[in-house]
Amino acid sequence: MYIILVYDVNVKRVNKVLKIARKYLTWVQNSVLEGELTEATLKKLQRDLSKVIDPNEDALIFYKLPDGKNLSRETIGTQKGKETWVL
Amino acid sequence: MYIILVYDVNVKRVNKVLKIARKYLTWVQNSVLEGELTEATLKKLQRDLSKVIDPNEDALIFYKLPDGKNLSRETIGTQKGKETWVL
Repeated sequence: MYIILVYDVNVKRVNKVLKIARKYLTWVQNSVLEGELTEATLKKLQRDLSKVIDPNEDALIFYKLPDGKNLSRETIGTQKGKETWVL
Repeated sequence: MYIILVYDVNVKRVNKVLKIARKYLTWVQNSVLEGELTEATLKKLQRDLSKVIDPNEDALIFYKLPDGKNLSRETIGTQKGKETWVL
């Protein structure tokens, strides 16, 4: 399963969220990470992140695709993430 | 074509970017908009946005899918966008 995680969290919690998310996914740009995960690993990531966010204030959106095959990405402007995750 | 736009721009330019992007896509949460666009409309949106960003500092990522069929979305935490764009 291909995952795009977009987070919108209070600046006080960004580092914690990023530290956890980077164990599972590749950082793309501020508030965006991507990568291939199994259902079980996704659930673990979600549990870990749920422990550090404030659900009344923070938002995590997980876009899920069966695979990354049909997904393409086009960047305009500066390339912030590593190129290693090119689709 | 289904589009997820994620932007990482200098705070000075966020309002301009958002004002343009909202003409084409639905706001989901900070720095994320989504929607169905034709190739031509996408190109127009990209041209419009290119005029207001600083390509050396700002980044716009357009995730493109042939359609939204295989895309699912799971939110943890607070729901910031409108529910009307439920996939």
